[in-house]
Amino acid sequence: MKIISVVAITCLTLTGCGQQETVAKAEASVQQSFQWKMVTSWPKNFPGLGVAPEKFATLVNEMSAGRLKVQVYGAGELVPGFEVFDAVSQGTVQMGHSGSYYWKGKIPASPIFGAIPFGMTVTELNAWLHYGGGLELWQELYKPFGIIPMAGGNTGAQFAGWFKKEINSMEDLKGLKMRIPGLGGEVLKRAGAIPVTLTGGEIFSSLQSGAIDATEWVGPYNDLAFGFYQAAEYYYSSIWHEPGTGLEFLINEKAYKELPSDLQKIVEVAARAVNEDTLDEYNARNNNALQTLINKHKVQMRTMPAPVMAGLKAITDEVIAEQVAADPNFAKVWQSYSEFMASIRTYHDSTLKPYFEAR
Amino acid sequence: MKIISVVAITCLTLTGCGQQETVAKAEASVQQSFQWKMVTSWPKNFPGLGVAPEKFATLVNEMSAGRLKVQVYGAGELVPGFEVFDAVSQGTVQMGHSGSYYWKGKIPASPIFGAIPFGMTVTELNAWLHYGGGLELWQELYKPFGIIPMAGGNTGAQFAGWFKKEINSMEDLKGLKMRIPGLGGEVLKRAGAIPVTLTGGEIFSSLQSGAIDATEWVGPYNDLAFGFYQAAEYYYSSIWHEPGTGLEFLINEKAYKELPSDLQKIVEVAARAVNEDTLDEYNARNNNALQTLINKHKVQMRTMPAPVMAGLKAITDEVIAEQVAADPNFAKVWQSYSEFMASIRTYHDSTLKPYFEAR
Repeated sequence: MKIISVVAITCLTLTGCGQQETVAKAEASVQQSFQWKMVTSWPKNFPGLGVAPEKFATLVNEMSAGRLKVQVYGAGELVPGFEVFDAVSQGTVQMGHSGSYYWKGKIPASPIFGAIPFGMTVTELNAWLHYGGGLELWQELYKPFGIIPMAGGNTGAQFAGWFKKEINSMEDLKGLKMRIPGLGGEVLKRAGAIPVTLTGGEIFSSLQSGAIDATEWVGPYNDLAFGFYQAAEYYYSSIWHEPGTGLEFLINEKAYKELPSDLQKIVEVAARAVNEDTLDEYNARNNNALQTLINKHKVQMRTMPAPVMAGLKAITDEVIAEQVAADPNFAKVWQSYSEFMASIRTYHDSTLKPYFEAR
Repeated sequence: MKIISVVAITCLTLTGCGQQETVAKAEASVQQSFQWKMVTSWPKNFPGLGVAPEKFATLVNEMSAGRLKVQVYGAGELVPGFEVFDAVSQGTVQMGHSGSYYWKGKIPASPIFGAIPFGMTVTELNAWLHYGGGLELWQELYKPFGIIPMAGGNTGAQFAGWFKKEINSMEDLKGLKMRIPGLGGEVLKRAGAIPVTLTGGEIFSSLQSGAIDATEWVGPYNDLAFGFYQAAEYYYSSIWHEPGTGLEFLINEKAYKELPSDLQKIVEVAARAVNEDTLDEYNARNNNALQTLINKHKVQMRTMPAPVMAGLKAITDEVIAEQVAADPNFAKVWQSYSEFMASIRTYHDSTLKPYFEAR
């Protein structure tokens, strides 16, 4: 059903425009309702990742009094999880929810907006996106594809992941088949590992069957939900490959431009509210999940030895330098990102860092 | 002018409800436009603090297509900065923007929602408010006053402040007249200092005249704007009294309930978006301001010696224990806050803390 509402009408009786029948004259354009489809890279309603797009749809529906309805689809329901970008670009659907590093084959600079090894934390990334020029660069990068990107939640710092054997040296990474996307995967490849890209729904069976030896996913809250503790013995909490992972809303530019300006603003502000809300939820739930993994499921917690962390960081610097040399867009975005990171690090090193020690 | 729009109408010609005159029948209630006043505790448009309510007003106006207009007033324009709570409670105005610790004389537990010495960081506070039961406790606390509170931005970790003389020991705090609100002021009082409560606009002249010896305010971005470097020599970056200061929107409950549900949701989501946006702006601008203070204005940076930090922390524990004993509401809110903090600290101590060291 199409709901039509008329704005800016003149009551023929200037008073008494109350509950009774009202004869009205349209003075402005008639407003339509809109039905959008949003495809995602996550299982439908998956904790955190899959809840963020549902929250967005609910907020938009409520704020627009039903004038913009967004139907959310899990990975594979309409299109596979890794075809979200193309579906939004082609206009098959109006929106998507995903992670920007999944598109690095098509757009080498895209991972910078999601997560960079040894890069910015969540609050640093958000500050860069919204007050450091990051979002403008992101929009510029997706514009040739007819897509408007917006920050779409953040998982917080992601754990190094689940391993079937312990990692005691860089040597132990050689030949390791690990599910890890983005630049983290590039770094591990350079360390001699074999990075594999799989959507969330494919990981557990691959880990259990031995098709992969290790996987990162998100952190305790999501990792508990997928049951990885049943398939790998060691859980590494060290933060290195995704220090604050930003998700993304992808919006078909043509569909967005067809919306009246109030609905455009509702889309933008709902995305921003979901951006914080998703982080709040991860932060609140991660520690409880971690305690469940440790106390109930007897997971063996590990941290990466310092030489492994240093080795991964050295390779990260090489990988980024090569990306900068190979792709002008990567170079342009990286300059903005790295300058901002250097500045905000100075600030956090004199505030949050000593506070974590002192409190 | 009152703009009236009719929702859910039936076109007498079921097709062709286009640009032409439309005769319509009202099936639902007629929607009105609303004009709200928002009073604040900050100078009009003051960087960060005073910009947050303006952003809120802009978002609400745009999302509601002008059906809810919010006029923002600086401290003293309609009511003094410290009478924001009463003005909203009495319905003199529909909204306010302030800091919860200003109301500790009336509601002893209120500072917990803003900042607690040696308490949670920004992201931890947001997680507690939105997924740890904090917001519900806050709403319960303000309900007898007819006020609905919402998170209204966060300044990030606040610097210890500006001092006319160096602080080398707890002894140096004795007799020190310092502008500092909330529980931080209670702690300093117990250390022998004389805490003074002044609104932002009153601080500079008091510091310059010698009426006070020291002041905290926010951090580099705001402190630079107020020019405190012209009135005090030493700037202490140490984080202790406000590790992540949450601001607040105060909404008159009766005014809120008069809104249709779509406008209620627009108010709620705009507040949430501003909550992150304000932090993003502080994080982006604080370091540049800090470099300006150091390089251009030759400010002497200092950190509180470890024995002073330990001394302040010990007194903080005493002050909080007394507040818990004296006020049942403080005890109830503190139980929720402190349990959540203990849990999220465990999580951050194994993730962000080592990451700040490793990167």
